[in-house]
Amino acid sequence: MKNSNLDRLFNPKSIAMVGASATPFKWGSIIPLNILKGNYRGKFFPVNPGIDRVLGHECYPTVMDIPETVDVALVSTPAKTVPGIVKQCGEKGIPFLVIISANFSETGPRGAALEAQVLETARQHGIRLVGPNTMGIYSSRSDLHALMPPTMPLKGPVSMFSQSGNVGVQMLAWGMDEGVGFNKFVSSGNEGDLNSADYLQYFANDEDTRVILAYMEGLGPGLDLFPAVQAASLQKPVLLFKGGRTDAGGKAAASHSGTIAGSNRIFKAAMHQAGVIEIHTSQALMDCAKAFSNCPLPRGNRVGILTRGGGWGVITSDSCEESGMEVPPLPDVLIKKIDKLLPSYWSRGNPVDMVAAISNDPFLECLEILTGWDGVDAVIALGATRATAKFPFSEDVTKPPEVMRAIEKYLKFRRTISAQPDAILTGIKRLADTTEKPIVAVSIGPDHLHRATLQDYQVVSYPTPERAVRAIAHMVNYASFKKTARFY
Amino acid sequence: MKNSNLDRLFNPKSIAMVGASATPFKWGSIIPLNILKGNYRGKFFPVNPGIDRVLGHECYPTVMDIPETVDVALVSTPAKTVPGIVKQCGEKGIPFLVIISANFSETGPRGAALEAQVLETARQHGIRLVGPNTMGIYSSRSDLHALMPPTMPLKGPVSMFSQSGNVGVQMLAWGMDEGVGFNKFVSSGNEGDLNSADYLQYFANDEDTRVILAYMEGLGPGLDLFPAVQAASLQKPVLLFKGGRTDAGGKAAASHSGTIAGSNRIFKAAMHQAGVIEIHTSQALMDCAKAFSNCPLPRGNRVGILTRGGGWGVITSDSCEESGMEVPPLPDVLIKKIDKLLPSYWSRGNPVDMVAAISNDPFLECLEILTGWDGVDAVIALGATRATAKFPFSEDVTKPPEVMRAIEKYLKFRRTISAQPDAILTGIKRLADTTEKPIVAVSIGPDHLHRATLQDYQVVSYPTPERAVRAIAHMVNYASFKKTARFY
Repeated sequence: MKNSNLDRLFNPKSIAMVGASATPFKWGSIIPLNILKGNYRGKFFPVNPGIDRVLGHECYPTVMDIPETVDVALVSTPAKTVPGIVKQCGEKGIPFLVIISANFSETGPRGAALEAQVLETARQHGIRLVGPNTMGIYSSRSDLHALMPPTMPLKGPVSMFSQSGNVGVQMLAWGMDEGVGFNKFVSSGNEGDLNSADYLQYFANDEDTRVILAYMEGLGPGLDLFPAVQAASLQKPVLLFKGGRTDAGGKAAASHSGTIAGSNRIFKAAMHQAGVIEIHTSQALMDCAKAFSNCPLPRGNRVGILTRGGGWGVITSDSCEESGMEVPPLPDVLIKKIDKLLPSYWSRGNPVDMVAAISNDPFLECLEILTGWDGVDAVIALGATRATAKFPFSEDVTKPPEVMRAIEKYLKFRRTISAQPDAILTGIKRLADTTEKPIVAVSIGPDHLHRATLQDYQVVSYPTPERAVRAIAHMVNYASFKKTARFY
Repeated sequence: MKNSNLDRLFNPKSIAMVGASATPFKWGSIIPLNILKGNYRGKFFPVNPGIDRVLGHECYPTVMDIPETVDVALVSTPAKTVPGIVKQCGEKGIPFLVIISANFSETGPRGAALEAQVLETARQHGIRLVGPNTMGIYSSRSDLHALMPPTMPLKGPVSMFSQSGNVGVQMLAWGMDEGVGFNKFVSSGNEGDLNSADYLQYFANDEDTRVILAYMEGLGPGLDLFPAVQAASLQKPVLLFKGGRTDAGGKAAASHSGTIAGSNRIFKAAMHQAGVIEIHTSQALMDCAKAFSNCPLPRGNRVGILTRGGGWGVITSDSCEESGMEVPPLPDVLIKKIDKLLPSYWSRGNPVDMVAAISNDPFLECLEILTGWDGVDAVIALGATRATAKFPFSEDVTKPPEVMRAIEKYLKFRRTISAQPDAILTGIKRLADTTEKPIVAVSIGPDHLHRATLQDYQVVSYPTPERAVRAIAHMVNYASFKKTARFY
């Protein structure tokens, strides 16, 4: 296993952009703009012979003309010019290059030969390469947005490497809707030099990274991911979304990243053994990033369910059992405690179905009893935010004064219950902290509601129970791996 | 099979509310408020001895005192009073009762005996019952919101019956986020009289209903759903979400709706044979309601994929194959056509990967070629709305004037591409209409974006490719059932 310290790559004190441009809407000007508008904390040196200034910064003919040390050079010049530029970077003593330029091994034998030449030159100078054919890198600590798209991710503990630039940067953007923050990101491109195993190993040892996301389509020749994955999984969760699982996906991957998917069955088995959390949909990747980065791991697979409606309790129970979790029966002592809080016709079991009540709402009291019970390892709180209160209440038609007065009165009541989530969500956060159990909220409602729940209260919530269950089930499986792996 | 014409139930000219109240926050006043604020098109008669007026309407001591014909009586009085009220309704000649009151068979033998008494009385008078223990009914044509919660659903072609009131009314509310409109809804409650088979049969023959949604937990004694389901599925799609599929879910259902789930394996097999579209998650129920009510059925299982990024094409291809669909290779003649539109390094295959382009965007031209190809039955258009343009572009920090000018220029460009979805979405709608193939858009982005796509352009869109694939796969399976069933 190579031991690549990528600190200077992700947190460079200075960056050069070779192929910088003063013409709008070229990558050579868009990437510098993304870096500067993101308030990058280091120094930025545009490089292009024949241009004086780029976005107010002095432009140098070559990297060798830059009067200071350079940690990272981004390169976006035509492919055939790249070997010469690598040589100059070597002479300048730049340790890391991020090669945005495309038309290398992903296009066929001619491109592959050029890529080999680039690599050879880099090795001679001890340079490490990201790419070629990468969409760039992001680092929250340095406010570094060296990316092709103008994405400005939220900051957080999730780091990601992706063999697809598009999938990667769109996960960063999607995180803004979901409240999921990123620490570091790299679009690994053709992985000519630095590859998935290197990034994985670095993220595994990076203190700022708590959760690792990976999108991979295949393994390059000679890349053995297994040792890196096994070592990383012992330290922190590795969520792997694998493209090219099928014939159709494999063919698309071959034309996209040029990788050969290989036997998916063998790959799956190896990843599972190594403790990887295998993810099957893009939504699950985001959902699990959210849960793993914001919840403690459950100690077992027993789930308590609190609900305001019986049907949703049934749906959640089905989903738990189908995901390999248990919904244990409530012991008498808990039933007696909850009897004191709820009308006599409550479910008297798990799921705890509170049954519709208009005014009195002992949601938090029930949740406290359920979460405090040592018979459950995780709790799903259905209807925590009472999201239905956000919908339009009445059509815009004039009504008789008696009806208008009743509408006014009801709207006032709605404002009261809309304010309740504050107490409920604050309470959930407190219970999660004291019990060290994951408590996940569920409310049908739009994305921004769930983002606010996470950002304002540090409570993870999803719009459907099945998404909550899936995230918890992945945490249960990972916790079980970690428990077993300790004895290896 | 009973032949129940429920026209007068769903579109009554007049409604009585027995147990109406002038006290806010009791069901007896909330339900009348929901009816009146929803601008119900018929006449409304509150009933309660000892109250003069409810929300400006004269209140009658009993239904028999109402001076006009009554089509439907809602009842929300205590359970033990209901048999007497049913008798009075019989004497008044009211054909349909909606019994909101609970504490009947769902609570045990005593409640079951009372429910039997209610049914016996109703039968003597030829009255048909919804419930007991129902959350009410909704009908778009009559603007009738006879529901416990204040939900004001969007109008549309989807009708739903639900054995869980909560699941049902939350689907109505959720539809407002997703742009999915409802025609009729009934919370079927204990199904003492009218049951799932009756509602199914009625919706099957109802011209205003194009898609039927069902949430069921179990079958009452003697209820044979099979003939109704088979007849309905030949006419229109029946999307069934079954709760109580597992031991845990079955136990929760027993304590909720009191139903016995029975053998899920046999039920599944029967439903499949009858052509039912079996749905496995709440999200899939909403997603499929959207697709089935807005897209033509595909004629086969071959999917064309248009993408702006290779990785998403891979993910979509995997998902298609895993869902039993094909992603056929592009014939040379199509490759040559698309060669004229895209840079030489496009994927030259299906998925058609356009490869990132900043300004020139022949998205619609490529889509037209792909959709017009007789080798595909459905098309997924990834990145149709360019949703990333909605995210914040720059942090709120003062920057050097050159950077500020570049930001201004880029923002202007962004406004231009933000306006492009108008042309693209209008184009998608036109292509869907002319080719009669489903074209489903995908863009990572918040709910309101997808609602607008549907409401403003009649284009179905989802935030992830897997959700689009799942909806199309269900349409493919249903289309295949209909094709085969013709020869029965």
